[in-house]
Amino acid sequence: MTKRAVVLLSGGLDSATVAAIAQRDGFDTYALSFDYGQRHSAELDAARAVAVVRGVQDHKIVPIDLRAFGGSALTDDIAVPKDRDVVEMSDGIPVTYVPARNTIFLSFALAWAEVLGSSDIFIGVNALDYSGYPDCRPEYIDAFQTMARLATKAGVEGATLRIHAPLVALTKAEIISLGTVLGVDYAHTVSCYDPNASGAACAHCDSCLLRRRGFAEAGLADPTRYQATSGAA
Amino acid sequence: MTKRAVVLLSGGLDSATVAAIAQRDGFDTYALSFDYGQRHSAELDAARAVAVVRGVQDHKIVPIDLRAFGGSALTDDIAVPKDRDVVEMSDGIPVTYVPARNTIFLSFALAWAEVLGSSDIFIGVNALDYSGYPDCRPEYIDAFQTMARLATKAGVEGATLRIHAPLVALTKAEIISLGTVLGVDYAHTVSCYDPNASGAACAHCDSCLLRRRGFAEAGLADPTRYQATSGAA
Repeated sequence: MTKRAVVLLSGGLDSATVAAIAQRDGFDTYALSFDYGQRHSAELDAARAVAVVRGVQDHKIVPIDLRAFGGSALTDDIAVPKDRDVVEMSDGIPVTYVPARNTIFLSFALAWAEVLGSSDIFIGVNALDYSGYPDCRPEYIDAFQTMARLATKAGVEGATLRIHAPLVALTKAEIISLGTVLGVDYAHTVSCYDPNASGAACAHCDSCLLRRRGFAEAGLADPTRYQATSGAA
Repeated sequence: MTKRAVVLLSGGLDSATVAAIAQRDGFDTYALSFDYGQRHSAELDAARAVAVVRGVQDHKIVPIDLRAFGGSALTDDIAVPKDRDVVEMSDGIPVTYVPARNTIFLSFALAWAEVLGSSDIFIGVNALDYSGYPDCRPEYIDAFQTMARLATKAGVEGATLRIHAPLVALTKAEIISLGTVLGVDYAHTVSCYDPNASGAACAHCDSCLLRRRGFAEAGLADPTRYQATSGAA
């Protein structure tokens, strides 16, 4: 039997690259996305498109209500910050942080992996261009893996669950270069925290700024569809 | 400000006892339950009753779809085992195990704790009468705590999150005795894996058998409402 991997797929640039890496490494991929009360649906539309284009074995979109707890600009009516420079982005944890989000996402991935008989979970966290999220750090991923090995039937029976975070030490430019080599079409992906109704990116939130700089540094054309008034090229 | 704690409240005997312990320890309690596609709603009705009786500050019931992944008798159409002896119960992980359930529950508790500014999460896991669940072991709880301290804003800023599992080393009889001292009315709680439509317990699943034995060993009257045909006293 081919090895199976659960891949967390947000519809963004990073997770699309991770799906391609998992496939390159010989895994049958099972994509997992969440409808968690994001303020925009462009992200889930992108996740569906990426899942189809990559030919994943299955794609589940699990509804979870992170709005029940509040506490983030991505799920509440808190303004998304715009046009911050790198120093501002690095200063503390931003309002776009969603409490315990990656922990919740990885926990669901763990449940699905267990049912699939899979010992491999892929996540596109990145500790360099990470905008200050605590749950994107390598020490966090290692601790989740240690916990996960104790949490499951498979762990008790001796299987060694692995959390793969292949982007953790890469710059955005390196991620884009690698994904391009692996055939990722970034036109399908959405990174913007604040897209308009048609899904066009704002070009000014932290995520847009990091993405634009990544394409520029990689020396590759940016296929992102920006809003007409965004001032992006 | 009074200390706040998030208490995972299933509606069962153990978590009702844990809520009483958290209150005894001086915490304002925020009860968290899940509607996860259980085959019966008696459990959630019991959780609501316990939350009211204990006078918790808030009670949230979060819908999560564990049926999306399958793999358990508690969420699928797999038969619940009946009348197993202690040796059979101890033999491996039973079909009532829900993949990664405690990991998912604790992850949501972590999100709420972060929003509440709480550093304390209470869970009623038990490693003695635990029916073979890997995610009820103390080493699992310790590993989750280590991960959680790295996962959150509060952890980054120096707060020390704690996962309290005060029942982990107690027998069912000891839990019942302690809860009785703390004023828990176990008539409000439901333990059965397979109750009938009116919420009466089957008396024969692992959970009923452990509960009945617990009351007997504690020398206390069992207030559980059993099905007329169950053969229970």
